[in-house]
Amino acid sequence: MRKKSVHPFQSTDNDVKKEVNTENLMTNLSNSYASDLLPSKDDKDLTKCFLLQVVNILLHYIEKTFDVKSKILDFHHPHQLLEGLDGFNLQLSDHAESLEQLLVDCTDTLKYGVKTGHPRYFNQLSSGLDVIGLAGEWLTATANTNMFTYEIAPVFTVMETILLKKMCEIIGWGETEADGIFSPGGSISNLYGILVARYKQYPEIRTKGMRALPCIVLFVSEQGHYSVKKAAAILGIGTDNVIEVKCDERGKMIPAELEKNVLQAKRKAAWGGGLLLSRDHSYKLSGIERANSVTWNPHKLMGVPLQCSAILIREKGLLGACNQMGAGYLFQPDKLYNVDFDTGDKAIQCGRHVDIFKLWLMWKARGTYGFEAQINRYMELAKYFYKVLKKKDNFKLVFDAEPEFTNVCFWYFPPRLKHIPKGFERDQELQKIAPKIKAQMIEEGTAMISYQPCGDKVNFFRMVFSNPATRQRDVDYLIDEIQRLGKDL
Amino acid sequence: MRKKSVHPFQSTDNDVKKEVNTENLMTNLSNSYASDLLPSKDDKDLTKCFLLQVVNILLHYIEKTFDVKSKILDFHHPHQLLEGLDGFNLQLSDHAESLEQLLVDCTDTLKYGVKTGHPRYFNQLSSGLDVIGLAGEWLTATANTNMFTYEIAPVFTVMETILLKKMCEIIGWGETEADGIFSPGGSISNLYGILVARYKQYPEIRTKGMRALPCIVLFVSEQGHYSVKKAAAILGIGTDNVIEVKCDERGKMIPAELEKNVLQAKRKAAWGGGLLLSRDHSYKLSGIERANSVTWNPHKLMGVPLQCSAILIREKGLLGACNQMGAGYLFQPDKLYNVDFDTGDKAIQCGRHVDIFKLWLMWKARGTYGFEAQINRYMELAKYFYKVLKKKDNFKLVFDAEPEFTNVCFWYFPPRLKHIPKGFERDQELQKIAPKIKAQMIEEGTAMISYQPCGDKVNFFRMVFSNPATRQRDVDYLIDEIQRLGKDL
Repeated sequence: MRKKSVHPFQSTDNDVKKEVNTENLMTNLSNSYASDLLPSKDDKDLTKCFLLQVVNILLHYIEKTFDVKSKILDFHHPHQLLEGLDGFNLQLSDHAESLEQLLVDCTDTLKYGVKTGHPRYFNQLSSGLDVIGLAGEWLTATANTNMFTYEIAPVFTVMETILLKKMCEIIGWGETEADGIFSPGGSISNLYGILVARYKQYPEIRTKGMRALPCIVLFVSEQGHYSVKKAAAILGIGTDNVIEVKCDERGKMIPAELEKNVLQAKRKAAWGGGLLLSRDHSYKLSGIERANSVTWNPHKLMGVPLQCSAILIREKGLLGACNQMGAGYLFQPDKLYNVDFDTGDKAIQCGRHVDIFKLWLMWKARGTYGFEAQINRYMELAKYFYKVLKKKDNFKLVFDAEPEFTNVCFWYFPPRLKHIPKGFERDQELQKIAPKIKAQMIEEGTAMISYQPCGDKVNFFRMVFSNPATRQRDVDYLIDEIQRLGKDL
Repeated sequence: MRKKSVHPFQSTDNDVKKEVNTENLMTNLSNSYASDLLPSKDDKDLTKCFLLQVVNILLHYIEKTFDVKSKILDFHHPHQLLEGLDGFNLQLSDHAESLEQLLVDCTDTLKYGVKTGHPRYFNQLSSGLDVIGLAGEWLTATANTNMFTYEIAPVFTVMETILLKKMCEIIGWGETEADGIFSPGGSISNLYGILVARYKQYPEIRTKGMRALPCIVLFVSEQGHYSVKKAAAILGIGTDNVIEVKCDERGKMIPAELEKNVLQAKRKAAWGGGLLLSRDHSYKLSGIERANSVTWNPHKLMGVPLQCSAILIREKGLLGACNQMGAGYLFQPDKLYNVDFDTGDKAIQCGRHVDIFKLWLMWKARGTYGFEAQINRYMELAKYFYKVLKKKDNFKLVFDAEPEFTNVCFWYFPPRLKHIPKGFERDQELQKIAPKIKAQMIEEGTAMISYQPCGDKVNFFRMVFSNPATRQRDVDYLIDEIQRLGKDL
């Protein structure tokens, strides 16, 4: 591998110092406006100074994010933010505000936000703050381009080609046949999957619409993501035509249930896609190579900053055939390069955000094995969490078996509930426990974890390990914290 | 307004200096990996050092972007990038690469990309690099959260509420009745518009699908955006049921043509939305307040970094009713705050990228009047460009009248074509001129402008003013450059 010298760190300082008269500039920020920056005025120093101030605020925030002693959030109600808090005024004016005021606004925006990278933030599948992914996003924002043509995004479209191919290989599809595209999230990826499947079966759908088709039915696991129903509503299939297939206790679709004359059943693995990168655990998705389309969200288990989602389509050419409209003003055929790299017409969007670079850079930074190590660590943490909970008699697992994935669902029983026998009355009380504990956690900013009811099961906590900052001590802390906040409820 | 003191710039340097032993760290970057950064290891200094190095690369790129003497791009073919260029290897490995190598990759990614903020980049509606918007994106990436609930994005969801309200007011809708959501681009916003209109007319569509409905027809301007057809294909309406309404020479829909028994005609103003902010020019969109939905892309005329698009729906409640699926695991009703601010279930997505902060920060930075001034300046440039072209007898305007908007379409005629009489033979030749000039521009990296054919009109150049870095001198340059590259064709 070639070595190029990068500018040494000292020279960053020196370069800036040399060019920037810092004292004057700081006075200037309070008297300067956006219109004084590049490109309106040719003031390079002021522009650099402003951006470095922003970075300074961000670096400070990053440090706080990973500091387990800092609060995850400083909770306020919507009306408080709307009305303005301690001078943080969110209303917009006809007139410009100074660069200094903007820096204060940036600080306040972070101050009243939620540190989703905090070691004790377990609230969502997308959590953690990956420094390399972050660097990728900063660069992407600076490059500020659009994925629709190779012409304006040469490096990024080639990176997408490389990554789609890699992901298809990992799934187990032959490398020449497959296709795919990065989309704004898993729901849209699932929509793509159903859209393409419908087109494959009934290509006339594009021109004639649903009224020309026989009745289409979608089969989905009863534990499937709600985006399948959303897609059915959007695509004109109708949610009545989504048939939910019964699942076992673990939430897996029961094959026998599915064998009731399925026209087309599509299974996705949106947040589990990362599991394929673990040689120890990938067997859990065995058979995925037989699927015709797969949604894979690197912004979940792989920790890529939001948004980063791909829909992978096994049959090459289908995606283009399904979606292309050939807008002449964007996709000229008479270009100087191979226009197969103009992927824009495969998308349901026109402009498309560059979500690829951060994933590419993270892959470079970790290698496939780095992702594997991280995912294995989550699995270890889930197993640890399960074992600790199992020993505690005031906690109860929703499904009492060693976790197959990084999520663990459980109830907490305050002492007074332990005397109420299992049944409707106890459920009525138990239903209120998780929301109350969560509300206190949010008010104190100590941890964040999600809860939900499911079928006949009342509100339970849903722990997910997908945050790289989380350690065993944070898991222990969460258990203690739930007991502290819940014991007198 | 409160004044808080921001950390002075000097202290940015000093803070870093104090904490960071710079010499050792630079040596370290070549021996360090992502796994040495926060949160894996508690090495704050190395993390800061790495991120500051990335920022250094970005600041250098920003300066080059605005330097009119720098090349817009250094063109290479897709296969060259795939094979690797001067050590820039895009292929991914199983093993991690050093932080130093990642910095080199960042530099190379920018080196082989396109400077979309360059003063002579006219290639797309989304162009320019707004420093405030960029700062907003950097902060958004660092906050790395999701728009689906107030819980995890309190500040951003309130900002969205404020901006949607403001945009609805500007359109002329009463402030209590309207609704809307930011979406991943104008095509998706248009899809929302049609989706909600269909639901409004036939609420049973959600459950029963298109087969339960009478035949639905969409009317669209024959010059309308291709996303309407894409939406028709996706929604199960079918492109055969999209009726294109004839337009006049300028490309405006002819009302008499439309008056042929229209069931529901929806007109959007996706890239023109910004025009509403100009008191001089907003009359051109008069009547927009009678529309039931409006797509407004701040990432176009208003210069907000990609992606930033809103769909505004006049009737409050429709968007939610149309799209909600009430996923219990995300949208718990039993929360400690007003859950009306959990906007996630209005969206067709599940996770949703934060596109609001950069717009909010830019609005703070400029005020409404700042956007107005910028848009007026584009209009002036378009008028100037038109006048210059009109005087040159080797250029011909596609529509010969003063521009009503910031786009100007024209042909360039090399001297040899001037002797061929108007007709098929000349058109055959003229068709090839724009692609050839464009290809040379790209190879030399001197300017970028789009071209397209339209109906019976062969390839013409399509100049759009939406780049804040563009000055009159750049317009003059473009004309000279087209002549230089085209005169011998």
